[in-house]
Amino acid sequence: MTKLGILLSGRGSNFLAIAESIRLGHIDAEIALVVSNREDAPGITAAQALGLPTLVLPSQGRKRQEHDEAVVDALRRAGAEWIVLAGYMRLLSPWFVHQFAGRILNIHPSLLPAFPGLDAQKQAFDYGVQFSGCTVHFVDEHLDHGAIILQKSVPVLPTDDEHTLADRILVLEHIAYSEALALVLSGKYRVEGRRVLPL
Amino acid sequence: MTKLGILLSGRGSNFLAIAESIRLGHIDAEIALVVSNREDAPGITAAQALGLPTLVLPSQGRKRQEHDEAVVDALRRAGAEWIVLAGYMRLLSPWFVHQFAGRILNIHPSLLPAFPGLDAQKQAFDYGVQFSGCTVHFVDEHLDHGAIILQKSVPVLPTDDEHTLADRILVLEHIAYSEALALVLSGKYRVEGRRVLPL
Repeated sequence: MTKLGILLSGRGSNFLAIAESIRLGHIDAEIALVVSNREDAPGITAAQALGLPTLVLPSQGRKRQEHDEAVVDALRRAGAEWIVLAGYMRLLSPWFVHQFAGRILNIHPSLLPAFPGLDAQKQAFDYGVQFSGCTVHFVDEHLDHGAIILQKSVPVLPTDDEHTLADRILVLEHIAYSEALALVLSGKYRVEGRRVLPL
Repeated sequence: MTKLGILLSGRGSNFLAIAESIRLGHIDAEIALVVSNREDAPGITAAQALGLPTLVLPSQGRKRQEHDEAVVDALRRAGAEWIVLAGYMRLLSPWFVHQFAGRILNIHPSLLPAFPGLDAQKQAFDYGVQFSGCTVHFVDEHLDHGAIILQKSVPVLPTDDEHTLADRILVLEHIAYSEALALVLSGKYRVEGRRVLPL
């Protein structure tokens, strides 16, 4: 069974959705380690409550690659084969990306390439788009940039504010991340240029 | 009845869709003038066939504002109140935009702000997005940037190529442009920041 390493910095709601998908048998994988770069991340407490192995490696003040080396070392010891970013608020070094090339996933709360970076839902709301959504993508050296595995879209309603929009996107994130993970772990996809296509 | 000025450079399929919407009574407006900056634009021939007033003002080699002044002069003489860009392959000068502030519309074949500029459908296809679409927006001084009036989205299918995607988007463009035009001409909208909301 494929072993996953989860990286998070906050509540890790996408991690929890994936854990539930695994429990339900929708994803054929197990979570080998949950790593947080913040001691106070509620996602770590939640992982412990689920009986999962956890590790806190504070990143503040540490050099990027130095911190990444400690994280990768822990992930390797745990046997992690695929890496799932679940609200990990730290850019991975190119070195880290290379260690798990093509096997790191991220989710972003917009229809990339629109609104990369922080506060994507507020960016989208303020721009006045009428559709937004979420994007599960492979991680490369650039922020929110790798090949797209799965996108889901939601309409932005006249009655929305940035919070109702973010809530609506989050519901789709929880569905999309598990779907995308199941797809890549099945191996039933091919990549043509930047396009990820089902086999 | 509101008088429209149409600017085009090519076949003007969005212009033809709007002309048909007017004929069907879906838009309460009349086309006062169709201007092309290219002599060989098929849209001009089509406009003549519909019995509409047309004017060709070649832009090649002319300074932007000098050309724009001739266009605006013609539009004013024709009594145009709103300006509809229908594949007009020339950036309007800030001066032009100011002459019809808040009354110039454009359509772009992507979900802006993703993929502004030329070949938007190919850009979207090559990027590997799973949703694209079209955007009707107010024109400001920046390329493909003004407040969004209406967007429609289409899925990008695994079986698509850039041409099938462009064709699918074009069908929606023809619907979206007339809907957006009917909305703004009705006056039943308000603008909050960049958000265009129905009243």
